[in-house]
Formats: sequence, C-alpha cells, structure tokens
Amino acid sequence: MQVRAYAAHEAGASLRPYEYDSGPLGANEVDVRVTHGGICHTDVSLIDDEFGVSRYPLVAGHEAIGVVHAVGDAVVGLSAGQRVGVGAIAGSCFHCEWCVSGRTNLCPARDDTVLRGDRGAFADHVRASDWRHVHPIPDAIPSAQAAPLLCAGTTVFSPLLVNGVLPTHRVAVVGIGGLGHLALQFLAAWGCDVTAISTTATKRADAERFGATGFIASGEEGALRAAAGSFDFVLSTVSANLPWDDYAGLLRPQGKLCVVGVPDQPIAFSPMSLVPAAKHVAGGIVGSAAHTRQMLDFAARHDIRAEVETFPVAEFEKALGRVREGSSRYRAVVEFE
Amino acid sequence: MQVRAYAAHEAGASLRPYEYDSGPLGANEVDVRVTHGGICHTDVSLIDDEFGVSRYPLVAGHEAIGVVHAVGDAVVGLSAGQRVGVGAIAGSCFHCEWCVSGRTNLCPARDDTVLRGDRGAFADHVRASDWRHVHPIPDAIPSAQAAPLLCAGTTVFSPLLVNGVLPTHRVAVVGIGGLGHLALQFLAAWGCDVTAISTTATKRADAERFGATGFIASGEEGALRAAAGSFDFVLSTVSANLPWDDYAGLLRPQGKLCVVGVPDQPIAFSPMSLVPAAKHVAGGIVGSAAHTRQMLDFAARHDIRAEVETFPVAEFEKALGRVREGSSRYRAVVEFE
Repeated sequence: MQVRAYAAHEAGASLRPYEYDSGPLGANEVDVRVTHGGICHTDVSLIDDEFGVSRYPLVAGHEAIGVVHAVGDAVVGLSAGQRVGVGAIAGSCFHCEWCVSGRTNLCPARDDTVLRGDRGAFADHVRASDWRHVHPIPDAIPSAQAAPLLCAGTTVFSPLLVNGVLPTHRVAVVGIGGLGHLALQFLAAWGCDVTAISTTATKRADAERFGATGFIASGEEGALRAAAGSFDFVLSTVSANLPWDDYAGLLRPQGKLCVVGVPDQPIAFSPMSLVPAAKHVAGGIVGSAAHTRQMLDFAARHDIRAEVETFPVAEFEKALGRVREGSSRYRAVVEFE
Repeated sequence: MQVRAYAAHEAGASLRPYEYDSGPLGANEVDVRVTHGGICHTDVSLIDDEFGVSRYPLVAGHEAIGVVHAVGDAVVGLSAGQRVGVGAIAGSCFHCEWCVSGRTNLCPARDDTVLRGDRGAFADHVRASDWRHVHPIPDAIPSAQAAPLLCAGTTVFSPLLVNGVLPTHRVAVVGIGGLGHLALQFLAAWGCDVTAISTTATKRADAERFGATGFIASGEEGALRAAAGSFDFVLSTVSANLPWDDYAGLLRPQGKLCVVGVPDQPIAFSPMSLVPAAKHVAGGIVGSAAHTRQMLDFAARHDIRAEVETFPVAEFEKALGRVREGSSRYRAVVEFE
C-alpha cells in the first residue's frame, strides 16, 4: 500500500511529507492505521543524527496507537478495526532461544521500528513484521495516553520483573520525565515505597501526584549522601553522567541500580561501592512482547496513564521541539487524524 | 582462657608467639581449639597493612577448623569435642532485618574474625561470638581440605545462590587460585558448562581437573573478544584491574558478571556494554551462615575439596610467603597440632 509518512531528509531537518509503497503484506505482517504517535527522545536523536547512524530520508516514530488495517494470512487473534499498539519492537524471529523463552526483546533478529530507515511510525500507517508484536489496547486507556506506554512504559516496567522488584521494597526513580513519570506510577501501584529523584525540587508536586512519597533534589549539596543506604532498587531513567558512587551508595545491601538511560561517558564505580555489600548494577531495555502486554493490563487495572501534551500533525515540529528541549510535560503525542 | 596466638607486631613482620586472656565465655560464645588454619590473601594483606587499617599486634586467620573446646550457656547443638569450622564471620546480631532474613553476612554488627585485631584464628584457640556461626564439618571432608571452604569456598558459592545461577547456564571463572579452583568444582557439580579464564595456559590441565571443559588464556591477544557473548554468568575471583568492557562482552544477553575480588581502580563500563543487552554487574561477598552450611553439605556430596599445601606451625612464614607471592597450589593450610 501507499504510506504517507513524515520524514527528515537530512540531520536536524524539519519533517516533510514522504510517501513510499510498502509492498505486499507478508503472512505474519500487520498493517496498522496510525491515529496517535508518541515522541520519544530517541526519535529526536535519530532525526538529529546524534548517534551517527541515521540514514535519510528517515521516518522515526515507535510509539504508535491505531487500528488494524490489514492482516497477513498467518495472523491469529487480530482483525481489521481493532485498536492496537506497535512499539519499539515490530517483530522478532520467534524461533531463537530468546524468543522461545519469551524474551523477544533480546532476539538478535529483532525488528526495531525506529531503526528501519524510512519505515517508522510517524506515518498514516505502520507495518509490524510480526503480529505477536501488535498489542491490543485495553478499553480503559485512551489512545493518546496509551501511546507512550508502548516504549517509555514497557522500558520502565520490564526491569521491575527482570530484577525481581517486590512490593516490600523501598525504591527510587531518577529523572521525572517521559519514562520517570510512568515508573513512579508503576512502582506506587506495585506496592513499593517510592522516592523521586530530580535535580531540583521543581517537579516535587508532580512526582507526588504520580505516587512518590519521598523526594530528593539531587542538585542540592549532600542530598544524595544523606539518603545513603535507603533503597533496594533505584531506576535511572536519565542519560546524564551521574556521580555513580553516590548512586550505588543510595542502595541498601544487595540492592540493585538499574540503568535504562544511556550516558555518553563510562559508568564507573569504586570497587568498594559494589563489592562489600554485594550490590548490583544492571542495564534495562524495552520489554518483551509478554511484558508489554502485562504492562498494558497492569496500567489499565491501576489507572496508570501517560500524562501527555497532544499536537495535530500540523504542529509536528512544535511537538518535536518540546522533546528536543526537554520541556514536554510529560510526553508529546501527535494526533494523525 | 589463655590463648597462644601468632601475631605480627608491625607491618610485614614475621609472626611471633603472642598470648592473651580471652576472658569469661559469654552465653552465646564458643571456644574452638584450632587444628587447621587456611591462609587467605586477606590475612597477608592485613599483616602487611596493605589496606592501611591494621592495628598491631595483629592476629590474622579466618579459615579455622578445629574441635569445640567450650560452649556458653545458651549454645544449642554443639558440644565439646565436635569437629567444627569458624570462618570470616564469627558472629552477628541475629535481630537485625538482615539476620532475621537469613542474610547474616550483611549484618551491620557482623563480627569479622580477621578485623578483631589480636583475636584472629592464627592461634591454638579461636572464640566465635555466636554459636550460629560455628559450622559442623561433614565427616567426608578432611580438616586440611575443609579449612579453605570456610572463606574461599563460601565466597564463591554464595553468589551462585544470590545470582540465581542455574545448571542450564554457561559460566566462566576468572582466576584459577584459592577461590577459583573451588568455584570451578562447585559450578561443574552445579551442572553448568564451565570455562576457566586465566592469564596464561599454565593452569589449563589443573582447570580441567577441577571441572572446566573450556579454557581461555586471557593474556593472548583477542582471546576474550573471540569468546564474546558466550556466558550467562562470569565470576571474577581476581583483584586485577580487568578490561571490564571485554568481560561484560563475554556475557550473553541478561548475563551477570559477579566480582568477588577487589581491584584498586574503579570498575568502569561503557554504557553500551551494559544497557542494550540488559547485562548485570554484581559484587559478591562471603556467604551467610545458611549458605555456608549448604556449601559444606554440597561439597561433601560432590567430593569437592580444596587442593591444599599443608605446613607445620614451624613453617608459618614459609606458608605466608607462598600466599604473598601467589604461588600456592591452591591454598596454604597451617596445621596447629
């Protein structure tokens, strides 16, 4: 089919209409008519070629909500008109050891929506290469608020399962942005004691609204050290180069620091920060298909919603600008219809 | 009682006979007549004041096997003449949250045998401050081979439990010394596919004898990178400053690198080494009382033994020298009787 997308034609360029023919629909493929698209910082980074890997014309976008337009012959359980989401992973092989064990997010043949070049989700249609990565959206969640769950939501939710976070744990979330504001909600509903960590106290009231009962302004001298030994689990959603020993210091014995943001400098610890109290540091990534569905169900049950600013397509550049400058509260979503 | 110990009177000094009165026996205390004492590198480091925390006269030693000499009024399940071991932890509070949850090795009031000053286990008697840290030794394990299990053994065994190592895992052990040669045996008996990593191929035959089926000579150019993505769990028993990104690179997705040695420089990773494949880095420490007993039972059942060189007390300095120069194969044990 003919897809009408929004592409950057060179690094940092404004998005312009761009059409391509998506060709015949494969047996496991699903075409989704996009109604809402969340904007992740990764989209802006790719448009701006921050990672040095972008190819142009580039169609970003990997938090799509829409309705099923067409399904391939082998697709099960999805039908035209059904409301669904397509996130950062639009397909995986389903026969490697990772897929077979449910860890589709570790599949080496994973189809990363945003790394396809001109086939991202900033378009009127997006094609999932495998129907098992097309997720029905619970009725309770409006589409605009659902879109950011498909990447931001699953990226902060999956580490709770992978790292064995328990309701008895005291936890902290570093960074109150697109990811962090969802992490606070998930962890509060998880039953944890939740502290928000932000550079200044500006977002304190918001953090409390999202479920935090504690707040640390990390930019205040000595604030991190005053909280030493407080948390079983700390989730860092920022890409800043943190004072890592202070953050390891926040952990209780055997506590875990999970990093889902990617800083541009090495993550370094004094051995004494990790070894004597058997602390853990873990990377975290977008969830598997199974974790994404568990996240959607959990969000629906607990009234967890992305807090979004919506923009019509005509204001796409304004929306991207909000993300680029980090002023979005808390996620920008473009309405394609 | 009057204890005849072997003390260093200044940094790096030869051990000399040193006597002290241990005073009345407390209700939970146990006096153990020491027959065998393993020498850990920590003992030498403390004698030599490598950490800058040593107080003299200093009696090191924290891998003692012996027989119960006397028990306090509240002691349960131990009686005079019984063969037991006292390791790196000779007591803990048994009322903090860590002790209550079985993690006695994280107790903030932990009694570290080797940090008491002049009350270590290089002596004819050692006093445990709590009987729950005095471990009966299975009949199958001779005392000389049992001694190193009390610190080296439990330090490499406990991380297998804490980190959820499974028999289906492919694992590697870095460093084939006092700790590593035990780790290889534990992991082979655990059912894992076991690879030994050593700087040169010198210890290859020994590593295979301890249960390794794979071997990597890390000093050979490109050897580590050739094994990238191979292991679910890598246990580093060395205190060298490793090329950490290469070691994270050895891991499969979601794999764990556990560090039980303490290097003198920061442990640093490129964020891309940890985040995209959700890898973990964890510190590891000596096991709890419960893990130590599980380790002793496991060692007895699987014929796991420390390979030791034994020395009479008259050759204490020779034994220490072997550890100091790293030439012990694989653990030096002093026979006190």
